[in-house]
Amino acid sequence: MLRETPGSLITAEIAEQPEVLARIIDVGLPAAREAARVIRARAPRFVMFTARGTSDHAALYAKYLVEVLLGLPAGLTSPSTTTVYGARPDLRDVLLITVSQSGGSPDLIESTVVARECGALTLAVTNSAGSPLAEAAELHLDILAGPERAVAATKTYTAELLTLYLVIDAWRGGDAGATRALPGQAAVLLQGQGQVDVLASRYRFAERIVTTGRGYSYPTAKEAALKLMETSYVASLCYSGADLLHGPLAMLDSQTAVLAVVPAGRAGQAMEPVLERLRERGADVALVAAGEQVAGSAVAVRLPGGVAEELSPVLEILPLQQLTCQIALARGYDPDQPRALAKITSTR
Amino acid sequence: MLRETPGSLITAEIAEQPEVLARIIDVGLPAAREAARVIRARAPRFVMFTARGTSDHAALYAKYLVEVLLGLPAGLTSPSTTTVYGARPDLRDVLLITVSQSGGSPDLIESTVVARECGALTLAVTNSAGSPLAEAAELHLDILAGPERAVAATKTYTAELLTLYLVIDAWRGGDAGATRALPGQAAVLLQGQGQVDVLASRYRFAERIVTTGRGYSYPTAKEAALKLMETSYVASLCYSGADLLHGPLAMLDSQTAVLAVVPAGRAGQAMEPVLERLRERGADVALVAAGEQVAGSAVAVRLPGGVAEELSPVLEILPLQQLTCQIALARGYDPDQPRALAKITSTR
Repeated sequence: MLRETPGSLITAEIAEQPEVLARIIDVGLPAAREAARVIRARAPRFVMFTARGTSDHAALYAKYLVEVLLGLPAGLTSPSTTTVYGARPDLRDVLLITVSQSGGSPDLIESTVVARECGALTLAVTNSAGSPLAEAAELHLDILAGPERAVAATKTYTAELLTLYLVIDAWRGGDAGATRALPGQAAVLLQGQGQVDVLASRYRFAERIVTTGRGYSYPTAKEAALKLMETSYVASLCYSGADLLHGPLAMLDSQTAVLAVVPAGRAGQAMEPVLERLRERGADVALVAAGEQVAGSAVAVRLPGGVAEELSPVLEILPLQQLTCQIALARGYDPDQPRALAKITSTR
Repeated sequence: MLRETPGSLITAEIAEQPEVLARIIDVGLPAAREAARVIRARAPRFVMFTARGTSDHAALYAKYLVEVLLGLPAGLTSPSTTTVYGARPDLRDVLLITVSQSGGSPDLIESTVVARECGALTLAVTNSAGSPLAEAAELHLDILAGPERAVAATKTYTAELLTLYLVIDAWRGGDAGATRALPGQAAVLLQGQGQVDVLASRYRFAERIVTTGRGYSYPTAKEAALKLMETSYVASLCYSGADLLHGPLAMLDSQTAVLAVVPAGRAGQAMEPVLERLRERGADVALVAAGEQVAGSAVAVRLPGGVAEELSPVLEILPLQQLTCQIALARGYDPDQPRALAKITSTR
């Protein structure tokens, strides 16, 4: 087999995202609407999500959407309650959404099968229409990202975010109008990576990086930390802006890089007191931020204007994917083939 | 004000735990039973938890109890959906349990008030009977830990765990019998700290520590990581045993200390394949473990035998509290007064 240039797979997959987002809006929307129709007819009162790794961050984003846009209580399940402890909860009136790139992880399949037996309406969101998970769930949505060859997920993450948004938006009776501008905004953001280069250089020797965000952008911070860890082997810790003030703040010093996601809207506003505390502590704070927030920071990647706050996470992660890829390459690692990882992780 | 010897407050509060546990079983049980009676009569179908920091780990433990022992779906809320986005979800048939040492954090109070307005039955679990949170909730349980003066929570954590266990056990019709041995077991565990000393010495210069556990013991691993961060300023990362294999595994090398919680029972068994992968990666693995699991490890703190698996977390954290206190002192820090932290954290 031909050895690829290090990082060529992930670089191509990062660049593919505007196209994938456009495909989901063009081709995926009818399926999302049909799933939403079935869900609405069953009128679930609680929404549970099951996922691991990157997909768990997409699930967390969707949990915020469900709570804020639909006004329904939602939770992230612990698959081990089923697979380790054999729990058989009463899941009538529950919608269980399982999110998985591969659709092949045994614990997610088992959790979904058991949830269905326990009365839940089940929806699988995967990049693999013929996968055991897609078969196990009553409803299935294909995220249409095409084959993902790099081990670290990039395009499947944003594809999961957008697919989850579309089904939840359709469920509340939305017309997905706010999504139309995303592919173009994503393309512009990916092209203007000057500040990403500056940041990658600044983090060349960083030994620990703390990522933070709030609300819809908290999953972005979590996903950035995971990417940094799995491709660059940096000790990256993520906290919500609020949790950061409850303990982890003590750990910060001038040798800790802090990467804060500060979009336009309420999640960004809620970060302001957090940024203030961080600066008081002398932390080195860089931002992925919209408009006016950029001013106060030494290094900032600017997000495009005019993005609906609930869709901002689809864009926020793009420069962070570029950043992690660049840090890995600068350190002599191949971000396509992180040590010790396989594409499908079999946990129970 | 007299300056205390560094670590004297937290050391005393760690040592106080057998007495606090005994007090909760003796004095707190009737109140837990009365709360359980009210809850059972209202027959909630979904349980939500709201908490931050250490109390969030107690809430995660209780979430496992609800899912496994009661067979009800449960979730951890994101307070920001209420406080940042103004969500007003439909919470009929929902029990919201808010866990907070101080009962004074504005976001937890607001979340509880809003949840009650939205139809939830609300229960506050705090160490402060007269606190605004206790007033805001329909039901209140005092964890009876007495004043906690060290900033880093220790005795209030185990007191929250046990109080949550008691109310959930009473709700399922249990008699709390399994808790009777806990105070004695805690006392024995706290006295035999030889292996803790060995581990503290081994970690004197550790720059990053990964903690891990599964099921009921996952909250133990999270709480240990938080304690290490807030008292010793170590970059400590926690992953469930399953999540660790989805990405973070790549970050581990021979310079990463791994601290795994491996109790008797199913959570411990489920850690076996994880330990195997960790050893393949050459990670330095130390255990807090029961019986036979201790054999395979260079350094291990042994848990007492004969503990019900769902109560093991009340004990597992004790040597880890001692460990973090010792590491902080060895590094010249005062674990009673972590830099940058206050006892009550005001986030919104």
